[in-house]
Amino acid sequence: MLAPEMNQIKKMLPLWLESSKRHCSNGKVASYIPELSKSPIDALGIHIVDSNGHSISEGDAGLSFTMQSISKVFTLILALMDNGEEAVFDKVGMEPTGDNFNSMLKLELVQPGIPFNPLINAGAIAISSMIAGKDALEKSERVLSFLRLLSNNSSLNWDLDVYRSESATANLNRSMAYFLKDNGVLKGEVEHVLDVYFRHCSVSVTCADIAQMALILAHNGLNPLTGDVLIPRRYVQIAKTFMTTCGMYNASGEFAIQVGLPAKSGVSGGILTIVPGRYGIGLVGPSLNRKGNSIAGVDLLQSLSQQFDWSLF
Amino acid sequence: MLAPEMNQIKKMLPLWLESSKRHCSNGKVASYIPELSKSPIDALGIHIVDSNGHSISEGDAGLSFTMQSISKVFTLILALMDNGEEAVFDKVGMEPTGDNFNSMLKLELVQPGIPFNPLINAGAIAISSMIAGKDALEKSERVLSFLRLLSNNSSLNWDLDVYRSESATANLNRSMAYFLKDNGVLKGEVEHVLDVYFRHCSVSVTCADIAQMALILAHNGLNPLTGDVLIPRRYVQIAKTFMTTCGMYNASGEFAIQVGLPAKSGVSGGILTIVPGRYGIGLVGPSLNRKGNSIAGVDLLQSLSQQFDWSLF
Amino acid sequence: MLAPEMNQIKKMLPLWLESSKRHCSNGKVASYIPELSKSPIDALGIHIVDSNGHSISEGDAGLSFTMQSISKVFTLILALMDNGEEAVFDKVGMEPTGDNFNSMLKLELVQPGIPFNPLINAGAIAISSMIAGKDALEKSERVLSFLRLLSNNSSLNWDLDVYRSESATANLNRSMAYFLKDNGVLKGEVEHVLDVYFRHCSVSVTCADIAQMALILAHNGLNPLTGDVLIPRRYVQIAKTFMTTCGMYNASGEFAIQVGLPAKSGVSGGILTIVPGRYGIGLVGPSLNRKGNSIAGVDLLQSLSQQFDWSLF
Amino acid sequence: MLAPEMNQIKKMLPLWLESSKRHCSNGKVASYIPELSKSPIDALGIHIVDSNGHSISEGDAGLSFTMQSISKVFTLILALMDNGEEAVFDKVGMEPTGDNFNSMLKLELVQPGIPFNPLINAGAIAISSMIAGKDALEKSERVLSFLRLLSNNSSLNWDLDVYRSESATANLNRSMAYFLKDNGVLKGEVEHVLDVYFRHCSVSVTCADIAQMALILAHNGLNPLTGDVLIPRRYVQIAKTFMTTCGMYNASGEFAIQVGLPAKSGVSGGILTIVPGRYGIGLVGPSLNRKGNSIAGVDLLQSLSQQFDWSLF
Repeated sequence: MLAPEMNQIKKMLPLWLESSKRHCSNGKVASYIPELSKSPIDALGIHIVDSNGHSISEGDAGLSFTMQSISKVFTLILALMDNGEEAVFDKVGMEPTGDNFNSMLKLELVQPGIPFNPLINAGAIAISSMIAGKDALEKSERVLSFLRLLSNNSSLNWDLDVYRSESATANLNRSMAYFLKDNGVLKGEVEHVLDVYFRHCSVSVTCADIAQMALILAHNGLNPLTGDVLIPRRYVQIAKTFMTTCGMYNASGEFAIQVGLPAKSGVSGGILTIVPGRYGIGLVGPSLNRKGNSIAGVDLLQSLSQQFDWSLF
Repeated sequence: MLAPEMNQIKKMLPLWLESSKRHCSNGKVASYIPELSKSPIDALGIHIVDSNGHSISEGDAGLSFTMQSISKVFTLILALMDNGEEAVFDKVGMEPTGDNFNSMLKLELVQPGIPFNPLINAGAIAISSMIAGKDALEKSERVLSFLRLLSNNSSLNWDLDVYRSESATANLNRSMAYFLKDNGVLKGEVEHVLDVYFRHCSVSVTCADIAQMALILAHNGLNPLTGDVLIPRRYVQIAKTFMTTCGMYNASGEFAIQVGLPAKSGVSGGILTIVPGRYGIGLVGPSLNRKGNSIAGVDLLQSLSQQFDWSLF
Repeated sequence: MLAPEMNQIKKMLPLWLESSKRHCSNGKVASYIPELSKSPIDALGIHIVDSNGHSISEGDAGLSFTMQSISKVFTLILALMDNGEEAVFDKVGMEPTGDNFNSMLKLELVQPGIPFNPLINAGAIAISSMIAGKDALEKSERVLSFLRLLSNNSSLNWDLDVYRSESATANLNRSMAYFLKDNGVLKGEVEHVLDVYFRHCSVSVTCADIAQMALILAHNGLNPLTGDVLIPRRYVQIAKTFMTTCGMYNASGEFAIQVGLPAKSGVSGGILTIVPGRYGIGLVGPSLNRKGNSIAGVDLLQSLSQQFDWSLF
Repeated sequence: MLAPEMNQIKKMLPLWLESSKRHCSNGKVASYIPELSKSPIDALGIHIVDSNGHSISEGDAGLSFTMQSISKVFTLILALMDNGEEAVFDKVGMEPTGDNFNSMLKLELVQPGIPFNPLINAGAIAISSMIAGKDALEKSERVLSFLRLLSNNSSLNWDLDVYRSESATANLNRSMAYFLKDNGVLKGEVEHVLDVYFRHCSVSVTCADIAQMALILAHNGLNPLTGDVLIPRRYVQIAKTFMTTCGMYNASGEFAIQVGLPAKSGVSGGILTIVPGRYGIGLVGPSLNRKGNSIAGVDLLQSLSQQFDWSLF
């Protein structure tokens, strides 16, 4: 039986989702990775799971999509587990930038030229170079295993069409990676690092997978259903903080004001968000606003957060 | 009688303060306002007040200092009360910038050229122009009255030496104000707006005053001692969110990771911070790190937050 | 009797001017100084004077217009005469910027924060502060006298409507001036410096006046008609170099490739250019291209330079 | 027999060179290409050739060095000969930038994201992609043949140690190239384009070779000794203009003021300059000032130009 608030959510969600969906036509599906441009522009789905494992699915929650930037939360955590805080923050900063997610300005303008935070592209590429493993494939498989563990879905896998599409066209990410290499930020071969990066961006999921991963974060690394500790609490705390200050690209500040929850979006239209101690939420809505976040998804999360007073602040 | 955690704080604080104080020599007292350069470089004081009005003072808590940027939290709130959210956010954004607090880069680089958020100088100047009042003096007096109300200290006043010192030398703020005027962001005469701005920066306080104002924010606008609602809750929520994402200049991201509390610093070395629902904290330590925050103060807050697990995240 | 090339110019000019005039509709009259927006968008006039004092006028050469940025060439020269090279280049650099004439980016980004060159707004404002004189009016009168001398027109005067219009609206220039003041570049009161600046920009001329001033530059400071040396040769050399590298805003590089003559444009649509050793040329065409230069004027100068092989290069 | 001015130069050169050489200790040999760091820091040599083929050599004129950025003048000319003006300037602008030669800022900040001019690294890489040839090697060989023709030295060749050293370490150039690829500026494979670029930078020369190439530019494309037209005059004019506005990195403006001659420097310490219609000059002095130009070389050219009144302006 659902808890009272879950019951309320379940009742109101169809109407709210319908209402948020109307925003889809004001956005655009991502086109910079050719394969992503095939996503359905008017889709919107959400999956919410609580500490008892009860869940609510609504709309196009069954749609498969690639994690894209959502995966950066988990490579950050894995890099922290592999290297410790000090080594990671020697190469990546902790500050929001106010710039586009793929901007290189601050790498040139602000010494010592390390990425400002691990959730912008430059930072996430640096993080990819810190995943342990003897080669790019082993690193990629470690990331995949970690995501399978957190999502409790052993069939999670790379969408190789998206992976190849991004790898073939991602010259701006290549540019960034060589800049980082020149600045002494990247370890190893640029193309190997990028391979790890493109692969973790291309992991294919549904809203339920994202919600399950989010649930672990909502419980500070513990799986509330099994009692297993999957991530050290401090690393979850770091991840949640970055999700709050930098998780929604250069609309993170506005999201904090309007929604107030730790979250991470991807250009596939996915959003992972959590209500700390309570829910894990996975959402997908491929139509993006001009900052790169799901236009209908942000609207729906705002309705939910304001109605149920979920803001951290 | 103090609550158990307050008791523990009281016991450990002298030692911790002593330890944090050692960092003072690694920082510098602000010099860009000549009058501020007279502040004692090795001072460090803190005042913590809880919901019952019990308080702890340690170190140089009795030192008088000017609010400087700490006042921006309250002019933001007053501007919201005077104009509503929509009017305010028409002229000021919600995003952290990653740039210095007095940077003008984004005003030129990012259209439509409004300040990125209300806590950087450009944003706070824009906010000063939105305070209601028939002239600069009336506006300034309304801000002062509001601060007196929140601090429960009717003798709060402007430090006219600091006010004149800043007014005479603040050519960078003048530059910013004229840029904003040119971009159509500022209402009214530039010098009148700046007068309001310089005055609210120059309000003289002690740690106890700041702690008392913080206590109101910690209780979402309610004075827990009297039951009076002094600020609408939504505006406190907005303020706390900005304090978390932008409150510590371009070290806000790091402060969120290491301390995890809504806070606002000033170049006088003051810091206002809150433990939501529980404490209001006022701190002063004029020796600043290179980002402009009290070097010993940040260290002390980090010790407290980590020891007592205060982070929001 | 006209020299052979002058004769040829005289014959072809009506046709070429007619042809260049067609570009007027693709540009816009400057609007940032309200008074300038009244200029006739389809006007185009030119006046060419040679070493013997023979001249050719065509089109709207009789139109009065304000010198605007053209005056910067002469305040630079006067500042050099008043202060010497070393003092001037201590506060103003020698490099083109690639940025808009009113950009402030490099003042913040590139240490030591002095203007890159004397022909962008920031540089010209710094130059205005170096003109000798006991107060703003005396400085302005010295500039005016110098322009009267060079143009051999004792009735040159300020257009006070334009002066007031610019002074009332030039908040971006004010912003720049305060920034320079903060960086220690400006001597004296900002408003006094700006007053000098606005006044020399507002000197009202015709194409013949500009051509006569240009003739002096074309002869390295000597008036070829009287034999008087009005400017030391080295300062003319400096001025001609800046006119070549920075004279046409951030289209100076293109103008050097396509026309190849030292020139200075103004937002009123005026252009001063010279054929070294030979001609002084004054031109007006208020319709501007997006870089701020007379759209028809640049076209006409390109035709003339390419036909008569005038490029320095 | 030497012409009178050449005779005078010959007499004074030993003394002046000795004097300029003293500046060497205030500069640094380039280190960003490891192989270049082996250059002798206190070397200074010059070779001047006139229209009759008479020449003067002084100092370390026999030193071999790689052309580095000097080669960009000739790849620009070859790209113009291969593609015409319109095609070239569709992908590369004509403006000086004021930024470092390896800056990427304007590529991101200024639409449409094409390099500002063909002499900064980004522009020269774009130019390398326009050289005709069926593959990287054929393109490189065409450039080499062109340089052999102009220098009248059929044994000119690549310094493969420098080529490999640069290719192995040039991650910033790689970054730039991928950025250009992403912006649609580069044709072909990035690594192929870079191979062409690294090879033409690595052509090994002496001052006499550079002087001979310069002589052709000084005579607008004609070899004055044979009467052969080796380059269309218009393309030499374009090259000379860029050498004047952008040839000495972001010290081009100052060089124009102090020397006033078209010139191009390289990080190997080489400088090519011309006295139009008269001399071709090759110079080498590996100790660089902070803008990347030969510190003693610039000083020597300033002495020569001011003494003999060579400035174009």
